[in-house]
Amino acid sequence: MHKVIFDTDPGVDDAMALLFLHRHPDIDLVGITSVFGNASIETTTRNALFLKQAWGIAAPVARGLGETFDPSRPHIDWPTGIHGHDGLGNIDVPDEIDLPLDPRPAHQLIIDTVRASPGEVTLVAVGRMSNLARAVRNDPDIALLVKGVVIMGGAFDVPGNITPAAEANIHGDPEAADVVMTAPWPVTVIGLDVTSQTVMTRAMLADIAERGGTAARLLADISRFYISFYEQHVDDGMVVHDSCACAYVVAPELFRTRSGAIRVLCGGIADGQTIQKPDGRLFPPNAWDGLPSQRVCIGIDAGAVLKLIGDTLAKVD
Amino acid sequence: MHKVIFDTDPGVDDAMALLFLHRHPDIDLVGITSVFGNASIETTTRNALFLKQAWGIAAPVARGLGETFDPSRPHIDWPTGIHGHDGLGNIDVPDEIDLPLDPRPAHQLIIDTVRASPGEVTLVAVGRMSNLARAVRNDPDIALLVKGVVIMGGAFDVPGNITPAAEANIHGDPEAADVVMTAPWPVTVIGLDVTSQTVMTRAMLADIAERGGTAARLLADISRFYISFYEQHVDDGMVVHDSCACAYVVAPELFRTRSGAIRVLCGGIADGQTIQKPDGRLFPPNAWDGLPSQRVCIGIDAGAVLKLIGDTLAKVD
Repeated sequence: MHKVIFDTDPGVDDAMALLFLHRHPDIDLVGITSVFGNASIETTTRNALFLKQAWGIAAPVARGLGETFDPSRPHIDWPTGIHGHDGLGNIDVPDEIDLPLDPRPAHQLIIDTVRASPGEVTLVAVGRMSNLARAVRNDPDIALLVKGVVIMGGAFDVPGNITPAAEANIHGDPEAADVVMTAPWPVTVIGLDVTSQTVMTRAMLADIAERGGTAARLLADISRFYISFYEQHVDDGMVVHDSCACAYVVAPELFRTRSGAIRVLCGGIADGQTIQKPDGRLFPPNAWDGLPSQRVCIGIDAGAVLKLIGDTLAKVD
Repeated sequence: MHKVIFDTDPGVDDAMALLFLHRHPDIDLVGITSVFGNASIETTTRNALFLKQAWGIAAPVARGLGETFDPSRPHIDWPTGIHGHDGLGNIDVPDEIDLPLDPRPAHQLIIDTVRASPGEVTLVAVGRMSNLARAVRNDPDIALLVKGVVIMGGAFDVPGNITPAAEANIHGDPEAADVVMTAPWPVTVIGLDVTSQTVMTRAMLADIAERGGTAARLLADISRFYISFYEQHVDDGMVVHDSCACAYVVAPELFRTRSGAIRVLCGGIADGQTIQKPDGRLFPPNAWDGLPSQRVCIGIDAGAVLKLIGDTLAKVD
């Protein structure tokens, strides 16, 4: 079993990833931490509670950070054209959810949970890296106590999506991402290099909705708006960015990785760009030297990952 | 016939490229302009004269810039471990060459030559972009009067060579390179994406030396030191970066290109990185918008390019 804390900004593809974690038999979802990104922290926290309630998820929800690691960064508009005004595809999520939040801030839930089960907890982070950066800055020892960190974010050998250089999750809090990438915990980065190849068609999603009960039907409803947005980028369907990171936890053999230190550019026209120094390549002294080697996914068996996601989402509780 | 001005910092692979331009029947080499990079401007200018004399090249040599476009940039040490203390593989180049320099600075030779043959001159630049930037800043109209600009430099979908982010020619004068990439002339960039695949083995070079007379034997002597350096990077032989750019002029069909605006990062840990916004990809407003679409080489028929280079170098005058 993989104990997982899901750090998320729901978000449409976040919702799919959450249902995947909830339904996969080898995953023990031990915490959900919200972060700003696809919408404000108020909205993403509300949405996490909404999905917890709708899907009967046991894990606690803790509210995370609502601003960047460097608070002087200017605000970026919420991507309402992708995730809707409510962050869940404009399905009229209720304003208030009658469920308690965990009393701790997200980074404290992460620290406590990791310390309670040393070597067992995997952090899966699919929004801004703000909570993880805060957690490891407040308690650096957790870097040696987590089992691993799996991130959806970044773009290495391919263009970004928010700028030609940067992917949105990393671009939304570059200083936090640089802290996370350079900390001495084992990070695997699932970026646009692989997620952009992983497109769930409308037909696949309809099949999941048919087989997967009310939970899957809600997911299909949530996804409709996002799929409309993606019509300008893909032929048919939705790019399942966040679910790819969750699939990696249970099926790393479906991915090809490259190891090497990673830095995140902070500031300038390529703000938020992720750059890896591949292990084994020789360079004069540079800003990557002496940093931990992390894994970047550069290949994916997209068909097998989509099948894994679909089969998991369609499991009726 | 292609009228070519060769902007160069000889440099070992520059020497090979110069002999290629001199010996290719479809190229009319109309000017050689020196620039700093592989060695100081004094050394590269001397080396250009040395090769002109040794190989009986008719084109004038004009001395170019010896410092970066932004003069406040710190000096970078000359790569004597790659090109030798004399810039030509430590073959004991004489201190003085008894040949006159063109009286004009390099950028003025470029301007005058382009204006004298509108639409006919191709600039092939394989060192720092300093001279080209100065030329197009001093006389912006030449951007519309050149036939094209072919650059050896940059790294797009692959790591750099001087840092994990940057290739040495661009890293050596990023502000100049950004001027050149964003000017409204048609630029084709031959970067590490393709040149690093193009390795001339010792056996190929020995064959060229045997078939190509004294000029080719001098080239083989010059190349020995550079090949020793490359032992840490390739199995056998030398990466013929600069000759790839020359091959593109006469055989563009051996390359696969991608179009889109290009920016060069100036400053920070990725100083000198080249980033293209591929045409047809949609992004929110960004620093690439409204800039001319240029061509980046992302594929090469390395075997055919090496054969073209070898056959050309081996032609006895």
